[in-house]
Amino acid sequence: MKNLIKISDQKVRTVIGLMSGTSLDGVDAVLLKIKDNGEKTKVEFIDYIEYPFPDGVRKFILKNSSNHASNIEDITILNFLIPHIYFDAIKMLCDKANIDLNEIDLIGTHGQTIQHLPEKKEMFGYEIAATMQIGDPSVLAKLSGIITVGDFRVGDIALGGQGAPLVPYFDFIIFHSEEYNRALLNIGGISNFSILKKDQSIDEVIAFDTGPGNMLIDILMKKFYELNYDEDGKKAFKGKINTDLLKSLIQSDTFIEKAPPKSTGRELYGEEFLAKNLELYKEIANEDWIATVTNFTAYGIYRNYSKYFPELKLDQLIVSGGGAENDFLINSLKEYFGEKIEIIKTDEFGIKSQAKEAICFAVLANETISGNSTNIPKVTGASKKTVLGKICLP
Amino acid sequence: MKNLIKISDQKVRTVIGLMSGTSLDGVDAVLLKIKDNGEKTKVEFIDYIEYPFPDGVRKFILKNSSNHASNIEDITILNFLIPHIYFDAIKMLCDKANIDLNEIDLIGTHGQTIQHLPEKKEMFGYEIAATMQIGDPSVLAKLSGIITVGDFRVGDIALGGQGAPLVPYFDFIIFHSEEYNRALLNIGGISNFSILKKDQSIDEVIAFDTGPGNMLIDILMKKFYELNYDEDGKKAFKGKINTDLLKSLIQSDTFIEKAPPKSTGRELYGEEFLAKNLELYKEIANEDWIATVTNFTAYGIYRNYSKYFPELKLDQLIVSGGGAENDFLINSLKEYFGEKIEIIKTDEFGIKSQAKEAICFAVLANETISGNSTNIPKVTGASKKTVLGKICLP
Repeated sequence: MKNLIKISDQKVRTVIGLMSGTSLDGVDAVLLKIKDNGEKTKVEFIDYIEYPFPDGVRKFILKNSSNHASNIEDITILNFLIPHIYFDAIKMLCDKANIDLNEIDLIGTHGQTIQHLPEKKEMFGYEIAATMQIGDPSVLAKLSGIITVGDFRVGDIALGGQGAPLVPYFDFIIFHSEEYNRALLNIGGISNFSILKKDQSIDEVIAFDTGPGNMLIDILMKKFYELNYDEDGKKAFKGKINTDLLKSLIQSDTFIEKAPPKSTGRELYGEEFLAKNLELYKEIANEDWIATVTNFTAYGIYRNYSKYFPELKLDQLIVSGGGAENDFLINSLKEYFGEKIEIIKTDEFGIKSQAKEAICFAVLANETISGNSTNIPKVTGASKKTVLGKICLP
Repeated sequence: MKNLIKISDQKVRTVIGLMSGTSLDGVDAVLLKIKDNGEKTKVEFIDYIEYPFPDGVRKFILKNSSNHASNIEDITILNFLIPHIYFDAIKMLCDKANIDLNEIDLIGTHGQTIQHLPEKKEMFGYEIAATMQIGDPSVLAKLSGIITVGDFRVGDIALGGQGAPLVPYFDFIIFHSEEYNRALLNIGGISNFSILKKDQSIDEVIAFDTGPGNMLIDILMKKFYELNYDEDGKKAFKGKINTDLLKSLIQSDTFIEKAPPKSTGRELYGEEFLAKNLELYKEIANEDWIATVTNFTAYGIYRNYSKYFPELKLDQLIVSGGGAENDFLINSLKEYFGEKIEIIKTDEFGIKSQAKEAICFAVLANETISGNSTNIPKVTGASKKTVLGKICLP
């Protein structure tokens, strides 16, 4: 507690943020200096690593994310195993940055989602929604000797929210400007928007999934080339956009035209989404397919903007996520959004694009020990604002 | 955080303790005033209820404690369902005690153990031991609006301990005396000892399971009478101790003679333990069986004392747990231990016997927010002392 009070009184803290996402590749670990808290928060990026899971761990997590293959013994073990892997990532990050473990004040860790059930279900007379991120923050605190905050989604779900998205809070405190209307666009597997008008407060942030991010491109890259993704958009640049296919993809879609708030995931933009068009357009060259699907991805993002925010005079579109590295996708976005809207990567604001989510959870941990609420009820649907995360002492 | 700092600065706190044990009957909820912390801790008992689980919940927990029937969706839901039940117990307790929820400063909750794997196992190059208590403390904090501390066993396991027993710390700070050599005896399903010599420090506490508690008696009460337990020892008082059977039970036992530290559970003292003797001594009257097994239970406790602590001049044996209510068992203990050792219930120290474990977790939560370590490395096997529990803000 003395440690906790000391650190919560500090003006500047050295913080590590950890994010392991649904791709199950491993953990992103970022090292920051965070000054102040709330809307005064300033983030100084120090270093970042991607730490892959050891062989077999991905499969073990996947097995225990599924209802028919999971069991309580494995889940219990995974909850303790993952923090050991996180700790190895932290040690490697500190080595790389040439900083001692005991110089770190705080860890913020998202954990590994193995179940997310935000829709209420009647159970024994109660209405229960639930979520589970494993990788126990208390285990990490004991292994590292560092105060650790984790399990951020639980509190929002307990108050009737969806437990997601949590990034819009971070987007607002880091990127809100009184000068420019901004939209934050993260292009992961799925794309999502946080809209930050210059005259709005944090309680009025609008955030939602726009539709596919890299997911459809990645599926095709795997299918056509046995590659995981289209590096820098190189394959797309070799192809041509096929307007018939583009129209057909737009017609196949059921999500993009929906009014926000809305969210989607793997279930909608998997192989089945592409199957019918792959059958109909099998004569189209692979490169043309990649170019067209990349353009469709940009279209999905733009369409959400043009259909639902025609009155918003957007000044800047600030892009992060793996998709920010796809130059063909960025070019497509520039064509759709036009010259008046500046497209910038978060890197230009000191927020390394690939590390954005890990940075977000470092900042959320900093908010927790500052006693600040970090859910936005209008975004998650929770009944009220609340301080998220469990505080685990070393 | 302001709340937390305020409460951690208070001299007296109003605290609720929650314990739901492996019997899966429901939750014990206790309301206390706790003054100070550490060895200065003073506990004032206010009220106590036993709150049964709704129909079906016991079965749902049991299902998800077993490897072949558990699944991740159920476990995730249970982790959120149980705090809703806990919160109903808290509301009933506050109603009974005529106290407002907003007068409560702190909740300490053990959670419901659904898996305990303290033995290390090699997994992906790591040595992993693990435990899982469900009933998320963050959910309870949000529902109740009260700072909640839970998940006490995790931190000790992370440091190489068994995550148990945690009660000896509580036993020491509440019952250690500079005047008397004391042993704390809890008679639950299994019996256990904490030995507190008058001249010893908290780091030297010895604690271990002695052998059967109520478990064997309860199995026979169910078998012979369809009752859950022998109320006040009434059935035993109607019977006579059969010395042949007693000798045979002693010979059947493999645990009592073992040197501490040691621990046991349901697996050793189930129906199989009794099966051979039930076959050999089937002509013995039911009441005589109950009297003899009750006496055997007392023998097991005494034998651990006489064999391993012959040099300890015990002054007081302080008894808690359901077995403390069994007068025949208490009489048997008096015969074994002799007149020089006073046998007293914890109630005489203001610690309601049935509520002892719930009181323990209220006190452990009070220690967490005071920044005190509550594991005893000599008892649990952990590599060092550490502050247990996750702090969840409302």
